[in-house]
Amino acid sequence: MIDFCQFGAGRIGAIHARNIRNHPNAKLRIVVDPDHGAAERLAGRYGAAISNGTDALADPAINAVVIASSTDSHAGLVEAAARAGKAVVCEKPIDLDRRQAEACAAVARECGVPLMVGFNRRFDPNFERIEQQMRDGRIGRLELLMITSRDPDPPPIEYVRHSGGLFRDMMIHDFDMARWLLGEEPVEVFAAASVLIDSAIGEADDVDTAVVILRAPSGALCQISNSRRSAYGYDQRIEALGAKGALRAENVVESTVSFAGADGIISDKPLPFFLERYAEAYRRELDHFIGVIVSGAAPLVGGEDGVKALALADAALESLRTGRAVKV
Amino acid sequence: MIDFCQFGAGRIGAIHARNIRNHPNAKLRIVVDPDHGAAERLAGRYGAAISNGTDALADPAINAVVIASSTDSHAGLVEAAARAGKAVVCEKPIDLDRRQAEACAAVARECGVPLMVGFNRRFDPNFERIEQQMRDGRIGRLELLMITSRDPDPPPIEYVRHSGGLFRDMMIHDFDMARWLLGEEPVEVFAAASVLIDSAIGEADDVDTAVVILRAPSGALCQISNSRRSAYGYDQRIEALGAKGALRAENVVESTVSFAGADGIISDKPLPFFLERYAEAYRRELDHFIGVIVSGAAPLVGGEDGVKALALADAALESLRTGRAVKV
Amino acid sequence: MIDFCQFGAGRIGAIHARNIRNHPNAKLRIVVDPDHGAAERLAGRYGAAISNGTDALADPAINAVVIASSTDSHAGLVEAAARAGKAVVCEKPIDLDRRQAEACAAVARECGVPLMVGFNRRFDPNFERIEQQMRDGRIGRLELLMITSRDPDPPPIEYVRHSGGLFRDMMIHDFDMARWLLGEEPVEVFAAASVLIDSAIGEADDVDTAVVILRAPSGALCQISNSRRSAYGYDQRIEALGAKGALRAENVVESTVSFAGADGIISDKPLPFFLERYAEAYRRELDHFIGVIVSGAAPLVGGEDGVKALALADAALESLRTGRAVKV
Amino acid sequence: MIDFCQFGAGRIGAIHARNIRNHPNAKLRIVVDPDHGAAERLAGRYGAAISNGTDALADPAINAVVIASSTDSHAGLVEAAARAGKAVVCEKPIDLDRRQAEACAAVARECGVPLMVGFNRRFDPNFERIEQQMRDGRIGRLELLMITSRDPDPPPIEYVRHSGGLFRDMMIHDFDMARWLLGEEPVEVFAAASVLIDSAIGEADDVDTAVVILRAPSGALCQISNSRRSAYGYDQRIEALGAKGALRAENVVESTVSFAGADGIISDKPLPFFLERYAEAYRRELDHFIGVIVSGAAPLVGGEDGVKALALADAALESLRTGRAVKV
Repeated sequence: MIDFCQFGAGRIGAIHARNIRNHPNAKLRIVVDPDHGAAERLAGRYGAAISNGTDALADPAINAVVIASSTDSHAGLVEAAARAGKAVVCEKPIDLDRRQAEACAAVARECGVPLMVGFNRRFDPNFERIEQQMRDGRIGRLELLMITSRDPDPPPIEYVRHSGGLFRDMMIHDFDMARWLLGEEPVEVFAAASVLIDSAIGEADDVDTAVVILRAPSGALCQISNSRRSAYGYDQRIEALGAKGALRAENVVESTVSFAGADGIISDKPLPFFLERYAEAYRRELDHFIGVIVSGAAPLVGGEDGVKALALADAALESLRTGRAVKV
Repeated sequence: MIDFCQFGAGRIGAIHARNIRNHPNAKLRIVVDPDHGAAERLAGRYGAAISNGTDALADPAINAVVIASSTDSHAGLVEAAARAGKAVVCEKPIDLDRRQAEACAAVARECGVPLMVGFNRRFDPNFERIEQQMRDGRIGRLELLMITSRDPDPPPIEYVRHSGGLFRDMMIHDFDMARWLLGEEPVEVFAAASVLIDSAIGEADDVDTAVVILRAPSGALCQISNSRRSAYGYDQRIEALGAKGALRAENVVESTVSFAGADGIISDKPLPFFLERYAEAYRRELDHFIGVIVSGAAPLVGGEDGVKALALADAALESLRTGRAVKV
Repeated sequence: MIDFCQFGAGRIGAIHARNIRNHPNAKLRIVVDPDHGAAERLAGRYGAAISNGTDALADPAINAVVIASSTDSHAGLVEAAARAGKAVVCEKPIDLDRRQAEACAAVARECGVPLMVGFNRRFDPNFERIEQQMRDGRIGRLELLMITSRDPDPPPIEYVRHSGGLFRDMMIHDFDMARWLLGEEPVEVFAAASVLIDSAIGEADDVDTAVVILRAPSGALCQISNSRRSAYGYDQRIEALGAKGALRAENVVESTVSFAGADGIISDKPLPFFLERYAEAYRRELDHFIGVIVSGAAPLVGGEDGVKALALADAALESLRTGRAVKV
Repeated sequence: MIDFCQFGAGRIGAIHARNIRNHPNAKLRIVVDPDHGAAERLAGRYGAAISNGTDALADPAINAVVIASSTDSHAGLVEAAARAGKAVVCEKPIDLDRRQAEACAAVARECGVPLMVGFNRRFDPNFERIEQQMRDGRIGRLELLMITSRDPDPPPIEYVRHSGGLFRDMMIHDFDMARWLLGEEPVEVFAAASVLIDSAIGEADDVDTAVVILRAPSGALCQISNSRRSAYGYDQRIEALGAKGALRAENVVESTVSFAGADGIISDKPLPFFLERYAEAYRRELDHFIGVIVSGAAPLVGGEDGVKALALADAALESLRTGRAVKV
């Protein structure tokens, strides 16, 4: 049985807590959140205690730590938990600053604890199926990868201001997916972006619509597109073209029901947002993390992966400033 | 908190036990199964005790009983549980004999306990969406209902011999679905059937491929087809045509990934069988049952529904013998 | 070069005339229609002459006759054309009376001319692909065939009165399709039907919604459903289940464009009616007919096929009257 | 009646000749091709004469000229035909050299004859539907356009050497489509490309896999991808995202038939190549051209459009050389 301490009792924290509760080999022992009411509610629901971070990390009964608190607290908690000898899974990003993220990864390595970054999409069964079939050679050598990612609506402008910007907050998931599916590290990044949805986003020095091209050493190319708005729900698609064919992962929809009427054949929209679309991915991510702790294997997505995705985001920002393809 | 006793520690029992465990308002207290090893394993996994039926039903701490044992034990357990004042959810069928099933429903009524029959498909989110949209008038008056139901493979011949036959064992789900979606009681049944898959099924006096036509008082017609074999997995589709359009529920598939290659565009098959396809339905069925206990409302699908579906199965058998449409 | 005389300058006649015009080995020479204006317009468009039936059939330059005139004229024209030694393609039905249709087929046999019946759907590329793949053994032995056929709207009530009724006018196409795809002659027919769309159809002693079950000697079963109304256009689907899998032909739609918006994913409807849906089938039917004339091979669908489809329609009507499955 | 002279009796010439033959208001009078055998065969099939270019253009009976000859002859023929006062439709490109193409457009303007460029895809019913719905405001302001274009196989290396390269030969169609659907002129082009399919293509100083980003003055972005190989046939898709939703045009497939078996659900591939996929577009293109001649309206896609698409191709090549986004 793995005993968990969880930092963060918000929206994603609630998901992790429930998944821990439903996992046969896990138990949620402690919840830590500066919002005591939230901590108490979550802890109460799952029979956990509440505590402060210092005491929680000092508790020898705790094996594993989930960090689902606010982004600015991630780096400090990762280092503290690692130094306390706990296995750590941290929501992305470890830190908006790449050197700080690197430092965290280094601490975890030194302390010999597993550090996993919450790139939940790697655990989506559809994307995983694409990855497996590519590794099995179904499409032969990869030539072109296309990643489409559209949020239903822009986040609150206050969130935008502290998010690190679209490339580090949103497209970072796609950079990680690209690295994983390309199977090699991109060496060149070009980015173009616009403010088309809300001028306040531009005033916050961010963009809401963006496209990126990555080039891999083999010559394989990758197209990424992001939009902060999609009238039809959360749009998450991937397509990979290779010598022998193409793999496509379509959206996961609300139901298989369609209505055929005078206006056409109307089928259901994609699931509304990441909590619904990636519910299964979050479950499988936790299960993988527990497997890592039990087996001692390396996590599928570690601290270094967080750093490398951030490096692509930084390169995209530089490309945006310079109008040039940027070497990574 | 609702405290459960469950009869049956087999394949379906395992599903119910896990769903009880994951439900915030339920607790599995007692597991009963003549196979003590199975009972112990299941009880052990979820922190329940094992017991015998008599003691379990006498336990005043038990509020609710799940009957997932062998079919021939259902009727006796339903009556005993009802007389002990427990809320009962029983896997279909209550009994292969319609009068016996009627007697069970009567006992539950007398004892004032809710009796719910495990027609799990009513809780499938896709079929429920069809039902809701029909009730909301989306297709106007229903004219034609088509239900397609194909198992991946025939059951063991030993099972076939005691199953009551395809109409009472398999198509009974479709009869219930037809009653629910038609919104009126069918008055006429015609059946045709063949043995095409395994001659041993014919030797056991059963059929493996069957089609039925139901007629409702309004004139609405319903086509049902069943096959005991489907090379591509569990095929479960419904289509409803009305004055203003048609609703279709397509299969739930293993993933949204497709492969485009020299042989065509290959997409994933339907989920393999009912455990996978109706996993969500079983969860929602349990949740509904708990809601019934808490609120005192009538279950969506009660003892009478079990009896009426059985009456349609019996009429189909008579139609098969006589070559005539049979009035119900 | 095959020189054609065509009887009938109406809606279907226009299609045949254009297809003759566009065929490299055919020439439309004569158009005959009691409506002289219609005959002149059609003939003028394609450089043909107009004439009366007697002269046209006496013209030794004419090799082939298309009969696309009103149903009650078919039988007489078939016989006259056959006796004049012309190859004949006749729109379905040859006659509403089965003995009369048989007599026509006999005359054509005696005269040694090819007589082809316009069951255009056999030439639809999608249905032909299903037939080919079945003959190639892709699904193994056929177990269950499902044919869905829905017109967009009921025909004018005046048409209904002289149509011979839904089974002989509309479902006759499905009976032919069933015979073709089953690959054996059905031996039993059961029918149920209702008047749900327009009570005037009932007053004309016809039905507007109908379902039929056919049984073949092998035990293979066939479900047919027909409706005279479909809010979403012309619905024409076929599904065949066999030991090794299933083949499905979906509708042909107006475009491949879909719109994803707040109300769902809206894709285009099926093509509106038979003129559009079977445009390619009509072209290929004509091409097949010309091939028959040139090669001397038997047509894919001859006079006997018209008779046998009519026998199934008659059996369906008898089943409707008696409530029994009728042996054919 | 419009009387045509056609230059070129090859693969595309055969399509145009047949479409002229089947058009009610057109007649193919003269075929010109340096390969006299090919010219004779094509002319013979449609009752046309053969001639040389000079005589043909001098023939006052000719109203319209189709130029479907080899690319290096286009510019000369356009100018000669324009000076002879004929309406001209010329297969793309008018010339690989942008100034030469501009000169041709200028001559046509001076001579007051319509000059239409064969960007056939604008006449594809699916893409036209997307354009119409965008103009009708269905998706609101356009934010992101995605164009996917994959040939089934690379052309012969000899063709590659004289093609002007992927951007001017293949992606030029997508540049035209982008201009049309954006509804504004792109101002910035970035390109990345690789040789992944055949190293001989690289030795011919060309690429076989390419991605491009266009930026429009409004900030709208466009992603284009091209590949010279697609194991599953000719892949031609477009997607447009706007404020109110997205429009997608999927591939046109060989049939609507799918096979469900043990390996999955296998549906048919896209049509094999442009001759099949754009058969309807070629018909509608000719019909539009004839309408232009009759009505005096400007063609949907004129000489200037050919020049502007070429300018985008040239900018893409420059971006490829410099690694920078190039202003247009």
